[in-house]
Amino acid sequence: MRSVSIIGVGMTPFGVFPELSIRDLASEAGRRCLENGKVAPGYVQAFYLGNFAGPSFVGQNHLAPYIASALGLHGVPATRFEAACASSGSAFFHAFSAVAGGIHELALVVGVEKMTSQSTARTTDILAAAGDMSGEVKAGATFPSLFAMIARRHMYQYGTTREHLAAVAVKNHANGAKNPLAHMRKPITMEQALESRMIAEPLGLYDCSLISDGASAVLLGPSDLAREFTDKPVCIRGVAQASDYLALDQKEDITTFPAVTTAARQAYQMAGVGPKRIDFAELHDCFTIAEIIALEDLGFAEPGCGGPMTLEGRTGPGGDKPVNTSGGLKSKGHPVGATGVAQLCEVANQLRGECGERQLKKANVGLAQNLGGSGATAVVTILSA
Amino acid sequence: MRSVSIIGVGMTPFGVFPELSIRDLASEAGRRCLENGKVAPGYVQAFYLGNFAGPSFVGQNHLAPYIASALGLHGVPATRFEAACASSGSAFFHAFSAVAGGIHELALVVGVEKMTSQSTARTTDILAAAGDMSGEVKAGATFPSLFAMIARRHMYQYGTTREHLAAVAVKNHANGAKNPLAHMRKPITMEQALESRMIAEPLGLYDCSLISDGASAVLLGPSDLAREFTDKPVCIRGVAQASDYLALDQKEDITTFPAVTTAARQAYQMAGVGPKRIDFAELHDCFTIAEIIALEDLGFAEPGCGGPMTLEGRTGPGGDKPVNTSGGLKSKGHPVGATGVAQLCEVANQLRGECGERQLKKANVGLAQNLGGSGATAVVTILSA
Repeated sequence: MRSVSIIGVGMTPFGVFPELSIRDLASEAGRRCLENGKVAPGYVQAFYLGNFAGPSFVGQNHLAPYIASALGLHGVPATRFEAACASSGSAFFHAFSAVAGGIHELALVVGVEKMTSQSTARTTDILAAAGDMSGEVKAGATFPSLFAMIARRHMYQYGTTREHLAAVAVKNHANGAKNPLAHMRKPITMEQALESRMIAEPLGLYDCSLISDGASAVLLGPSDLAREFTDKPVCIRGVAQASDYLALDQKEDITTFPAVTTAARQAYQMAGVGPKRIDFAELHDCFTIAEIIALEDLGFAEPGCGGPMTLEGRTGPGGDKPVNTSGGLKSKGHPVGATGVAQLCEVANQLRGECGERQLKKANVGLAQNLGGSGATAVVTILSA
Repeated sequence: MRSVSIIGVGMTPFGVFPELSIRDLASEAGRRCLENGKVAPGYVQAFYLGNFAGPSFVGQNHLAPYIASALGLHGVPATRFEAACASSGSAFFHAFSAVAGGIHELALVVGVEKMTSQSTARTTDILAAAGDMSGEVKAGATFPSLFAMIARRHMYQYGTTREHLAAVAVKNHANGAKNPLAHMRKPITMEQALESRMIAEPLGLYDCSLISDGASAVLLGPSDLAREFTDKPVCIRGVAQASDYLALDQKEDITTFPAVTTAARQAYQMAGVGPKRIDFAELHDCFTIAEIIALEDLGFAEPGCGGPMTLEGRTGPGGDKPVNTSGGLKSKGHPVGATGVAQLCEVANQLRGECGERQLKKANVGLAQNLGGSGATAVVTILSA
């Protein structure tokens, strides 16, 4: 395996864009990424598209060649990867593998989802199809209720409180307010978070991420080639994808995600670093409880200690382990298929020192963790400047 | 890149199976494949699922970990690949790339589709989403009508006749009658084919492939490891995936598929053989005209000569270039996501001499060609014993 680097990154704003099609969004992110990497479309040898539910949200399937051709990538292998909310993380993992294995030189990865053209009820149904339809979903579960059960168990087992959850929301909204591409640039107070209307107890409105339109892109190439295109290549030190059962009732312990611990172990090993060497991270906060569990599964906190760590401010921009400087899924937004690659854009931009108002002082090694469903897919990536 | 071989193959019957879920079908093909390759699930390092429209046909998304966990493949990367009717061909291409590049050792590829639980009208809509919904489909095109336009143009340009098309159907039905796993084991006459009711002129009922449930699987590994598991490894000599525009109106010439010619050129180059060295092939006969064009795009016939070549019997089991001994999509059936890998199962079984009544005498080098939509994706694979 050869060393692989990120050469370019690109994102659209996340938000509600009724005037833009899914192809408009994905193409715009791809174009921004190619411009950022100073690479003409003709040099790209393979196209990887992360998309969860284009057919259900906008009625269009076979999206990869549809978008590749709009970007001017003619003839190249163009494939859609679906792994629920980890769709573009998975596309990235496979693109990395192909470049590392010498199959392709330059590979473009785009993540996209256009969610806001459907009603909330229909959107909830489309998202529920990432769970076990024949079991938990048939029994009435939606993703807020699945993560509510996870949160309840975490509270029971470790004493996690609603204040711990709210601290995640307050921090991520404060961060997102500084991100020009974020969907909801609105700081909130602890009181607002705690008093927001209940969605699925104990999760209130501010414990849930946003339903957004948006797209993201990264361009990969062998590290020895990367410097020919950019002065600021970002090295992919480690990346791994892992899986687990879809249904919560098949898991032994719902306060931890084995797919995350497995992928993290492999990514740390590949990178030759442990959790202490990670300066900052983008974590998959689809619900506030998910960020707390991610802190624990990645080894940033002992089991049960993710909540207190957050409430103490240690994951804030001035803390010892800043998390979700982008605003996270909570405030930046969560266009499902775009999320994994959007996390990588933020980590890469921090490593490059290009995050403006939200730039961290110490940003040498960063991590991104992308979760699919209630933990059946996980992708963990470690990047360094 | 290291040499990669197919270690095991497995398929379910293709047909109408109201009692089996999509997970039942996919797991059954996977189990048969692992048994065929004499490999325990615990040795499989990555899972590749080809599926076109599970969320639309059966309401379940995030299918890869759902099926992987049912097969006892715990923790491994499990990913769904979607490329319309070339979904499992594409999954196979990516599995090959990962094994060839040294990322994984043993990789299991499963293709699956469960189509018959929907009405014909709804099925037509779901399939249409592989075309350009904002253009040709909005204007009223369905896949039969798109391929009807392709056939009309081929007739106009080259003098192809309805007898040429019917000859494809008659041959593939005769072949499929000898395949115990085929959906429709019914030989038909030239008269039946010509007199069948019109679906989209000039394509009659027998010019169209079947709507089926089914699943298929292949297990891959490095060639130097393959012989530890099986006495009959099948070498992957070349494989390539390519793309093109989704919409017919964006193509310069609709009587040829550039994605196929591109993928074929690359696969031939990788294999170090040309079309003359191919003993037999499984071609993507979603409609009879598609098999005729495939003969031409792959270099088995000059442009315009695919029809006469078929009518002369040269693609029959006794001809110089036998095509679709399995019965093809026409008679074996076309559970969309299962088709690409099912083609590989037939080619591998021919190379192994395990095709029973339909076994070819000369089967040293075989080719499979898998097409997505009206040619926006193509995967071409060359195998040898």
